[in-house]
Amino acid sequence: MKQKWQRIKSVSGPNLKLFSTRFDYMLNPRNGATEKMIILEADDASNIVALTRENKILFVRQYRFGIEDETLELPGGIVEPGEMHRIAAQRELREETGYSGGHWSFLGSIASNPVFINSYIHHWMATDIQLTHQPSLDDGEDISVELIDKEDVRRKLYAGFFKHPHTVNALVLFFAKYR
Amino acid sequence: MKQKWQRIKSVSGPNLKLFSTRFDYMLNPRNGATEKMIILEADDASNIVALTRENKILFVRQYRFGIEDETLELPGGIVEPGEMHRIAAQRELREETGYSGGHWSFLGSIASNPVFINSYIHHWMATDIQLTHQPSLDDGEDISVELIDKEDVRRKLYAGFFKHPHTVNALVLFFAKYR
Repeated sequence: MKQKWQRIKSVSGPNLKLFSTRFDYMLNPRNGATEKMIILEADDASNIVALTRENKILFVRQYRFGIEDETLELPGGIVEPGEMHRIAAQRELREETGYSGGHWSFLGSIASNPVFINSYIHHWMATDIQLTHQPSLDDGEDISVELIDKEDVRRKLYAGFFKHPHTVNALVLFFAKYR
Repeated sequence: MKQKWQRIKSVSGPNLKLFSTRFDYMLNPRNGATEKMIILEADDASNIVALTRENKILFVRQYRFGIEDETLELPGGIVEPGEMHRIAAQRELREETGYSGGHWSFLGSIASNPVFINSYIHHWMATDIQLTHQPSLDDGEDISVELIDKEDVRRKLYAGFFKHPHTVNALVLFFAKYR
């Protein structure tokens, strides 16, 4: 256990739509220097490794504005205020893909980016999911669903195919638990 | 391949120390709605799975302001302007841990967060590294080095022990390549 950094003061920063911000002035216990750090205050999110009875995993293909390119990633999204992250996972899966039901279990939580974001991503898996609804997308979404064989997903994971870190994280935990 | 979103306009946002920001107004090809998106313009970073001759992997323990907690993560840091990401990996390893030398190979690049950040993390591995320097930390750092046996790292990875997504990503690629 290292000596704790002390927060000298905290100043609100601009609101950036996806997150509010603050600047923390932190005292380094090693040398007494004060560091001004930007912190993004974001909502937690859930994502889901969802398996059909045919051993296919659901992915969503979408255009991502940060990298100005398409990604193939696991379904998921923001946990709404007051919502449990399991419920958010089930809601996002249904909204983005139209699939629901099945048997759910929790894989674990990993920080979104511990350096400057205060939120966590909660990773879930579900087996025996079935197509039950029409997808219902937000105005800001344009998503298409792809089903990929579980063994092909494993190969893609270890080949570095997936470009979204939270998708990689969920898949690692999934393949550790469910071989 | 999905239809591309069109950028209607782009407006500079505040500078937040770790990154500059912009707001992109993007036209959704599915429904013609315009979405205002925040983009963080950040520098790329490198991290390193560095193995000693005794089959131990180097980690750094440090306090992370985003989650207000300690993490155990791989050494790494920002790629300086004009610097190659391999050189950044070697420099950061030496600065944070004092280790250098050995045989280096590239594991792949994964987006920092494709949703709202434009940068990538470049993952490297090195074998046969040796302690050759004193670590030299920035004013804003307070880091201690820990060596963990490779098989213990593998167990921790699959047990969900590591809380930094980019550390998880690098380790997945490492264990896929180097068993």
